[in-house]
Amino acid sequence: MKILVLNCGSSSLKYQLFDMTSNTVMAKGLCERISIEGSKLTHEPAGKEKYVVESPMPTHEVAVKLVMDALVSPEHGVIADVNEVAAVGHRVLHGGSTYSDSIIVNDDVKRVIREYFELGPLHNPANLMGIEACEAAMPGTPNVAVFDTAFGQGMEEEAYLYAIPYEYYEKYSIRRYGFHGTSHKFVSGRTIEFGKLPESGRKVIVCHLGNGGSISASINGKCVDTSMGLTPLEGLIMGTRSGDVDPAVVQFIMNKEGKTVDEVLNILNKKSGILGMSGVSSDFRDVANAEAEGNVRAKAANAAFRHRLLKYIGGYVALMNGVDAITFTGGLGENDGKTRKMICDHLQYLGITIDDEKNKIRGEEVMISAADSKVKVFVIPTNEELAIAEETLALTK
Amino acid sequence: MKILVLNCGSSSLKYQLFDMTSNTVMAKGLCERISIEGSKLTHEPAGKEKYVVESPMPTHEVAVKLVMDALVSPEHGVIADVNEVAAVGHRVLHGGSTYSDSIIVNDDVKRVIREYFELGPLHNPANLMGIEACEAAMPGTPNVAVFDTAFGQGMEEEAYLYAIPYEYYEKYSIRRYGFHGTSHKFVSGRTIEFGKLPESGRKVIVCHLGNGGSISASINGKCVDTSMGLTPLEGLIMGTRSGDVDPAVVQFIMNKEGKTVDEVLNILNKKSGILGMSGVSSDFRDVANAEAEGNVRAKAANAAFRHRLLKYIGGYVALMNGVDAITFTGGLGENDGKTRKMICDHLQYLGITIDDEKNKIRGEEVMISAADSKVKVFVIPTNEELAIAEETLALTK
Repeated sequence: MKILVLNCGSSSLKYQLFDMTSNTVMAKGLCERISIEGSKLTHEPAGKEKYVVESPMPTHEVAVKLVMDALVSPEHGVIADVNEVAAVGHRVLHGGSTYSDSIIVNDDVKRVIREYFELGPLHNPANLMGIEACEAAMPGTPNVAVFDTAFGQGMEEEAYLYAIPYEYYEKYSIRRYGFHGTSHKFVSGRTIEFGKLPESGRKVIVCHLGNGGSISASINGKCVDTSMGLTPLEGLIMGTRSGDVDPAVVQFIMNKEGKTVDEVLNILNKKSGILGMSGVSSDFRDVANAEAEGNVRAKAANAAFRHRLLKYIGGYVALMNGVDAITFTGGLGENDGKTRKMICDHLQYLGITIDDEKNKIRGEEVMISAADSKVKVFVIPTNEELAIAEETLALTK
Repeated sequence: MKILVLNCGSSSLKYQLFDMTSNTVMAKGLCERISIEGSKLTHEPAGKEKYVVESPMPTHEVAVKLVMDALVSPEHGVIADVNEVAAVGHRVLHGGSTYSDSIIVNDDVKRVIREYFELGPLHNPANLMGIEACEAAMPGTPNVAVFDTAFGQGMEEEAYLYAIPYEYYEKYSIRRYGFHGTSHKFVSGRTIEFGKLPESGRKVIVCHLGNGGSISASINGKCVDTSMGLTPLEGLIMGTRSGDVDPAVVQFIMNKEGKTVDEVLNILNKKSGILGMSGVSSDFRDVANAEAEGNVRAKAANAAFRHRLLKYIGGYVALMNGVDAITFTGGLGENDGKTRKMICDHLQYLGITIDDEKNKIRGEEVMISAADSKVKVFVIPTNEELAIAEETLALTK
C-alpha cells in the first residue's frame, strides 16, 4: 500500500511517497515557485539520482501532475502506475474547533477548511488548493486531511479559553488551538510505546524544539495543554518568533515606531526570537557558536530560550500533578544534547538524572535518563510525514 | 518615630500614619476627586470617629495640607505637630532599571521618576505630584520613594528580556519589570522570618492574588522571576486583566472590531480577566458565588484562573530547581482557603499536603501545610503600607 503525503504552501508543495508495508520513503521532493515565474520540481527517488525539472507550474494542479509524472517516470519513477497510490494525506493547518481527528475529505470538510481561512490565512488556502489539485489530477483517489490543530482539541476549556471578553470567543473563535499537533501526537504516542509506559503512568511532556518550537502536556495521549495558541506565535522563544510577550508590548512598539499592528506582528513573527535577541541568526546552531565565541547577546538569547522552556516544562508538570516522561524532538531537541542536559539539570527536584553516554546518541529513539531516574527522558525523532501517512492509511485501508 | 505613607493617584491620595515603635496605624484616610469638583477627604483616626471634609482640592499640595490639618486637629488628630512626622514614604510605580531599592528623594530621583512617565503613564506623574506636594507642604521632612518595580530588578536578563529585536530594549527600555514588588519583597521576607527558613532553603514562591494578581519566585530574597512584565497586564488571570494572551489576539480583535490598539489594550486591562470570561463580576467572590449557583461561565473562569496559577507555580519551581515555601497573600490569597486547597492538591508531586484545619484560619500569619509536607505552605497577609513605612524608616532613622 502506497500513501502520498502532501504539504502545500501558497507557492510550494512538498511530497513524500511511503510504502506503508515497510514504512519506507520511496520518493520525496519539492515543487517551488508555483504560480511564479521559474517554477522548479526537485524529485528524489530512493536509490536513484536526484532529478530536477524546470517547467511552468501555473497552478497546484499542474504541480501535482508533474509530481505524478515523476513518480511513474520509467527513468526517475518508483511506481508503475498512478493507481498504485492508495490515498493522499494532506497536512492542513487549521481545523478550528471542528476536527479533533483526521478525516477523509468530502465537500463538508472542504467547506470547513475554507471557513478557517481567517484563522490560518497563510496555510489553509494553500492546503485546500493541494486537495483540489489532487481531486482533479487523481480522480477517485481518497484525500485525507490531517490537521495540525487536531491534537490541541484535547484541551479542556480552562486551558484553551483566553481571559478576554467571552463574546470574542463566540463571535470570532478566538481561543488557544495549538499547532505542531501531528508531531505532538506522533511523538507522545511513540513515547508511550517505545517507553513501555503503563496505562497508569502516561503523563507525557513533549518538547518539539526547532526553528518553530512548541511543547505539549498530555495524559494517555489526550492533550492537557500546549504552548502555541490562537496562532503559532505564542509560547516558547523560537528562531524568529518572540513567543510570549506582555500584550502591551504590541501597543508600545506600535506607538513608539508609528507602525501598524500587522507590521508589529510581522516583526514578532519574523524578526524576533533568538534572531532578534542575538542579532546573529535564527538558527540555534549559529547562536550556540556565537555564544562559544563570546557573543554576550547570543549567550543571553540561549539563556532566555532555556528559561522559557524550563518554565513551560515545570508548569506542565504542575498541571498534570507530576510527569512520567519528558521527550525531546525536532531539529534542536533531537540533536542538541547540551541543551537537553542543561534543562534536565534544572529538573533534579523531580528526581531526573541523565545518562551522559546515552545523551550522545543521535538520530534514533533513545532513553537518555539514567536507570534510577524517577522520570524517564527520551529523544524521539519526529516524523510528521510518516505520521500523516499512518493517519491516512488508518482511515482508508 | 512616626512615618506617613502616601499612595497618590492622578486624582486621589491614600495615606496612613504609622507609629513605628509599635508598628501601629495611628490614622489613615483618602482624598478623592483632587483637581475635580466635589473633592472629599475621609479621615479615620485610630480610636476616634471617622471624619469627612468636603473642601476644594485643586492640587495634590492642597490635599496634603488638608491631610496634615486633619492629623494635627485637636478633635480628629492623632499628633500634636506636623514635625512629629519624621519622614514620608511614597509608593512610586516605576523606577525602571535605575532603582532596585528604595531611596531618599532628591532632584536626581525626581528626574528619574519623570524619565519613566512613559513606562508608568497613569501612576508616575501622580506619584511625583505627591512627592512635590509634600516637599512644599512639609519642607525639611525627608521623602522616600519606594518603587513597585524594585523587587523585579533582581531578575537576571534571561528572565527580564523579551525575545524581540534587541534595539527595542535599548531604545525604549522594553523589558519585563514586574510589579507588586513591595508586596512580594515584604511577603517573601516574612515567609523566611516567620517560616524560619534556613539560609540553604529559601526558595520561595509568593502568590499575590487579588483583583490584580502576580506571582514571584525568589531565592533568599532575590527575585528570580515574576509574572507581571512591561506593564501589570501580563501574567495571571486577574479581576479585569487578561494576563497572558497570544500577542496575535491584539491584532485579531483590532482587525475584527475596527478598534485602535489603545482601545484593545483598554479592553484587555479593564474588561477581561474573570469579568470578561464570566460576564458576572471582576470580584472573585461574586464569581465563586455564581459558580456555586450553577453559572457555567463563572465555573470556566475560576478553572482558567487556577489553571494559569498552577502553570506559573510549577514553572517557578522548575526555574529554581525546587521550592522550599509557597505563600499565599492578597485579598483572595489570604481569604480563599478553597482555592488554596485546590491549588495545593495539584502539587502533591512536590510532596505538599495541607492541614485543613489550619487552612481555615483567617487574617493572621499561619503555616497551612501539614507537619509532614515536604514544602511549607503559608498564608501571610500582605501590608504594602507597613512595608513602605519600614523601608522609609530604614533609610531615614
